[in-house]
Amino acid sequence: MSLSPQEEELAQRWVSFRPEIKIVDCTIRDGGLMNDHQFEDQTVQAVYRACVEAGIDYMEFGYKGAREMYDTSKYGIWKFSHEDDLRRIVGDNDTDLKISVMADVDRTDIDRDILPRSDSVIDMVRVATYIHQVPGALAMIQDAHDKGYETCVNLMAASVVSLAEIEGALELFAQSPVNTIYVVDSFGSMFTEQVRMLLGHYLKHAQAAGKEVGIHAHNNQQLAFANTIEAISLGANYLDGSIAGLGRGAGNCPTELLVGFLRNPKYHLRPLLTCIRDALDPLRARMQWGPNIPYMITGQLNRHPRAAMAWEDSDTCHDHVAFYDSVIEEE
Amino acid sequence: MSLSPQEEELAQRWVSFRPEIKIVDCTIRDGGLMNDHQFEDQTVQAVYRACVEAGIDYMEFGYKGAREMYDTSKYGIWKFSHEDDLRRIVGDNDTDLKISVMADVDRTDIDRDILPRSDSVIDMVRVATYIHQVPGALAMIQDAHDKGYETCVNLMAASVVSLAEIEGALELFAQSPVNTIYVVDSFGSMFTEQVRMLLGHYLKHAQAAGKEVGIHAHNNQQLAFANTIEAISLGANYLDGSIAGLGRGAGNCPTELLVGFLRNPKYHLRPLLTCIRDALDPLRARMQWGPNIPYMITGQLNRHPRAAMAWEDSDTCHDHVAFYDSVIEEE
Repeated sequence: MSLSPQEEELAQRWVSFRPEIKIVDCTIRDGGLMNDHQFEDQTVQAVYRACVEAGIDYMEFGYKGAREMYDTSKYGIWKFSHEDDLRRIVGDNDTDLKISVMADVDRTDIDRDILPRSDSVIDMVRVATYIHQVPGALAMIQDAHDKGYETCVNLMAASVVSLAEIEGALELFAQSPVNTIYVVDSFGSMFTEQVRMLLGHYLKHAQAAGKEVGIHAHNNQQLAFANTIEAISLGANYLDGSIAGLGRGAGNCPTELLVGFLRNPKYHLRPLLTCIRDALDPLRARMQWGPNIPYMITGQLNRHPRAAMAWEDSDTCHDHVAFYDSVIEEE
Repeated sequence: MSLSPQEEELAQRWVSFRPEIKIVDCTIRDGGLMNDHQFEDQTVQAVYRACVEAGIDYMEFGYKGAREMYDTSKYGIWKFSHEDDLRRIVGDNDTDLKISVMADVDRTDIDRDILPRSDSVIDMVRVATYIHQVPGALAMIQDAHDKGYETCVNLMAASVVSLAEIEGALELFAQSPVNTIYVVDSFGSMFTEQVRMLLGHYLKHAQAAGKEVGIHAHNNQQLAFANTIEAISLGANYLDGSIAGLGRGAGNCPTELLVGFLRNPKYHLRPLLTCIRDALDPLRARMQWGPNIPYMITGQLNRHPRAAMAWEDSDTCHDHVAFYDSVIEEE
């Protein structure tokens, strides 16, 4: 009739919280993949204010793209995240919220665009790398570390990388000065069991080297929140979320669900709801994100969502059956 | 570098399937809670055809409500699921799909409205009971069993029932002739750990008595699919889903996600996608369902979604902050 000792211990953990856990809000950075990073300042300011008031730990604004590589008439300022643009939003950022940017390997001019830490409001540089770029990522991690930044690394598209290669990358990351290594479900294809398997490998290397593990999930199969919870239960302490789930395609783990789950009293839900009502819901007239049938299909097939994103922008976007037929035929 | 023996065993299970698993599609039954069961025949026919073609095991059409208890000018025919209405859709149901109806304790005239099995196209009677109605549920289970039906029982709102009472109910269900006992997350408030804890108790009683366990999840926190997967991994074999997630409030576990997860070749995704495109997406002009902020809030607070449903029908439906303030104030 009563709880078993295991259940009691679990319930006790359940109603408490783990203070090491950090939320990294990616609303503007990952959401920028849906609008070529063309956010108005007032939207970015609203997200910044919400993150500060909600007690979020990090906010990621955008990329540090090398401007020679991109058409600046197409891409907005958060593809580049220049220091003066950041400061126009955050001033000197005299808050507890840390500021993060993402730097893609081979697409960032680190000598010119990653300033010394003392000259920047940025706190953390996140290096995004595909498996074939790991040596480049290691050089960027070292550079950002030497300049004084916290660092983390996202090994992208892990669901299509062999475990042997992942292990090789993890060994190298463990020897680097990177602070946090992320499990990244770029295609939203992972089920909880796969998250569990990968986390085991990431944690083994990270913990032996005194590093943290993070998780960045996509919501193609409506599992972004569930997979993040699973990662928490295994020991991941860096959790990516985005407000209203705003992010590429099916979007990310909604920050407001994370805050509802974590019991740390430093987090507050209401500022996030205000941000959704006033700044993000109005965007839906111009941009669509969140789980839908085409994103589910690419997730089920463990594929990049680009075909689904193109379909969503087409005149036939409501014919999910034709989309399904077109991707199955390609197999 | 290679998979551990545990991982290999897991991966092997992963790419195979468990033939005992049954999908029970609740699209029309649970979706009827959003439109007072007023579906047009062509919608019900489209769902029926999709279930047959997709290889779904059971389709639940509606309730067996006693007509004296309901305003028949308000409620549609699937509040009552009369034999002639069923037969107008399914004929003699010469298919592999079984037909289910739900019977609420205290709201069903079993003597008049549950026919002998030989006079009906219904295969399974599902008894829905709150904890204070368990004796009534047991009488209804016995009656339906004696009339020749498969039976299952949903203990509603389990997230607000004490474990001692749940254990008491499970002992009684185990002694009854019921075939399947369902874990029901009526409020969409359960995290995976709570599903795991409850499943342990349900399975203990059910397996000792040679019965199956099922799961019926709601999607308030975008965990309906994840919680269903968790239940599968623990041993639940009856899985409720609904096409496009159509169901009360935040809706149910989407049947199309379940089919993508289960590897049983008898299931087919395409007929479900056709049904969504042709029969369910058009309903969205008149009825809204699926995860949103008010349903998230009632889920986080472990409450019935009725306040959120009323809010969604109000003029202020877009002001989620005001909704949050109103429910927090009631606490």
